Amino acid sequence: CGRIKSKALDLAKKIKKVGQDDPRRITHSLKVGLAITLVSLFYYVRPLYYGFGSSSMWAVFTVVVVFEFSVGATLSKSMNRVLATLLAGALGVGAQHLANLFGDRGEPYILGILVFLLAAASTYTRFVPHIKARYDYGVLIFILTFSLVSVSGYRVEKILELAHQRLSTIMLGGAMCMLISIFVCPVWAGEDLHNLVVNNIENLASFLEGFGGEYFKVSEDGGDGVMVPKEDKSFLQSYKSVLNTKTTEESLANFAWWEPGHGSFQFRHPWTQYLKIGVLTRKCAFHIETLCVYINSEIQTPTEFQRRIQVPCMKMSSESGKALKELASTMKTMTHSSSFNVHIENSKKAVDDLKTALETTSSGDEAYLLEIIPAVTAASILTDIIKCVEKVAE
Amino acid sequence: CGRIKSKALDLAKKIKKVGQDDPRRITHSLKVGLAITLVSLFYYVRPLYYGFGSSSMWAVFTVVVVFEFSVGATLSKSMNRVLATLLAGALGVGAQHLANLFGDRGEPYILGILVFLLAAASTYTRFVPHIKARYDYGVLIFILTFSLVSVSGYRVEKILELAHQRLSTIMLGGAMCMLISIFVCPVWAGEDLHNLVVNNIENLASFLEGFGGEYFKVSEDGGDGVMVPKEDKSFLQSYKSVLNTKTTEESLANFAWWEPGHGSFQFRHPWTQYLKIGVLTRKCAFHIETLCVYINSEIQTPTEFQRRIQVPCMKMSSESGKALKELASTMKTMTHSSSFNVHIENSKKAVDDLKTALETTSSGDEAYLLEIIPAVTAASILTDIIKCVEKVAE
Repeated sequence: CGRIKSKALDLAKKIKKVGQDDPRRITHSLKVGLAITLVSLFYYVRPLYYGFGSSSMWAVFTVVVVFEFSVGATLSKSMNRVLATLLAGALGVGAQHLANLFGDRGEPYILGILVFLLAAASTYTRFVPHIKARYDYGVLIFILTFSLVSVSGYRVEKILELAHQRLSTIMLGGAMCMLISIFVCPVWAGEDLHNLVVNNIENLASFLEGFGGEYFKVSEDGGDGVMVPKEDKSFLQSYKSVLNTKTTEESLANFAWWEPGHGSFQFRHPWTQYLKIGVLTRKCAFHIETLCVYINSEIQTPTEFQRRIQVPCMKMSSESGKALKELASTMKTMTHSSSFNVHIENSKKAVDDLKTALETTSSGDEAYLLEIIPAVTAASILTDIIKCVEKVAE
Repeated sequence: CGRIKSKALDLAKKIKKVGQDDPRRITHSLKVGLAITLVSLFYYVRPLYYGFGSSSMWAVFTVVVVFEFSVGATLSKSMNRVLATLLAGALGVGAQHLANLFGDRGEPYILGILVFLLAAASTYTRFVPHIKARYDYGVLIFILTFSLVSVSGYRVEKILELAHQRLSTIMLGGAMCMLISIFVCPVWAGEDLHNLVVNNIENLASFLEGFGGEYFKVSEDGGDGVMVPKEDKSFLQSYKSVLNTKTTEESLANFAWWEPGHGSFQFRHPWTQYLKIGVLTRKCAFHIETLCVYINSEIQTPTEFQRRIQVPCMKMSSESGKALKELASTMKTMTHSSSFNVHIENSKKAVDDLKTALETTSSGDEAYLLEIIPAVTAASILTDIIKCVEKVAE
């Protein structure tokens, strides 16, 4: 009994955490409930029911399947659904007429062959990357509606009336979803994408800002060998979340493509730019991943040498971090700022300083370079990457 | 006219390529067509039609929505669908009875509130990661069926009979999908996962085997400064595909969980092990990504120094490559092999050789170490990672 209780508590905590992580999830659930309840009014209110008949089922259906978390996803699904239903309905009726020409005996065969061909061909197109990204759901609904219409037409005589009823209920359900998702606490995929990219850059920035101090085991203020307190080491892990965001970014960009203008984003905002920035950010994160191995390296660097490279290295890391932070904040406010260039220049100067420091190093330290150099090179690669990001940021 | 023609040709080429990349896609399309045609037989054959009535629509419906590329995905979706329909149907009938107690006036309100609550709660649970990964589709169908049953019950008196008809057609559609996907040219998600992981390791291996030669600009056989021919440089890019496979691996592992035993895999094969190997492989790829920057470095390394480190570096890279290749082939055949350890030992020895070489380096070269060391360190990290992989491979 105690074990069941603790398990239930565990589950409850998990469920609560889902809501705390993103309170919009709770709003979303309520919105879905609202939409479904509204749509099922068509069943309860008699005059509406007699207008649509049992086809009102399709409205409920559409709402359940089409309502997604972000506006873009909902729009994409409802548009796909409505358009695909229209197209497939028309084709289905056409197939029906064609099959009729072959008489009662031939009809089922012709219809069977047509359904087979269209289903196979459409399923095949779902593998084409471009179609998969944007119209996957539409193709699915196309297959569905086409086979339903052409097949059920064989039985139901009043096919046109039925098609009309179904289409109007689906459109009604779709419109309901679109309206609720746009006007009741909207969740914009574009905004999410923007925040995700900015957040990723900020994560990298805070890693870089902290890295210098962590690597040389000094506190930010003193600089005389005092260990950094253990509490604030979360920044060392923050870059990890950047490594695997590719899929999320791509689907968000796809959804954002469907969204109308909102907030500071216009319709047809250059969403693909975000993907490019994302690729560069991830590249940066890969380098950081490599860099990270050296933080807890066991081999001790000779103090004399360490002192020599410490200043430029710390400057490189903190300045590039500041530059990235600056970049993130300019992206947030969508303004241009000159201090980004200042930080970049500073970090470049630090790279040069480091080179001079290395050139004047006395011999005998070479073996120890093993630990120092990677940090340096990665930091210089970082500066290169920051330059790229700068270009993309427009 | 010419432009339209060339565009059409382009499209045709793309579509052809989709099939060439993976011929199983063509088979899959044909399988879907077959399943839908078989299921629509219920409409054409009169005795069957009168048995099921217009509910046979649900069979078509189920097949279209549930049939997926791999066996695991199909199984997961059909099981989810059938179970969710059962549960939601039962709950829906219950809700119906409950609402009946409140008389004709109260009924719609009670039903509306119930639908709202259940829809909102179920939508919320879809955000819980574990449920999302494995039962997302089931919850969707649950909401759908529950609202359909409880709402339409208000109108249709013979609700139990209808529910029975629908459930049996859905089960029929689901069974059809499962049978066809398992017995007609099955595509196993588990096998795909296995191949993907093995392939990723092989990609890294071929990169490492080629890297030494590429970096020192020597051909494999001569070793006297001859440029490697340009043709076979694809191996330098091969590791790129490894970087972003996380999502694919995770969804494949999820699907594989549903699959019965097949080939050399048993039911409940330790699929999560593959995910762990995947994480390590990607870590390896991240390091390689960093390493890659130095291949086309502009700064010229002094020949004298280069000659000294060339032998151990090339050995490190080729031996670790060979070790990974060995690992991939042991995974393929699922046997144990001792030559893996031999290669690991060799590459470790090479690391030691390199260290000695560096220690005896004369001074004045330090500035140039900038290019050499990262390769070395990354290779030594690689050896560490390979050790991890070895552990996981059991």
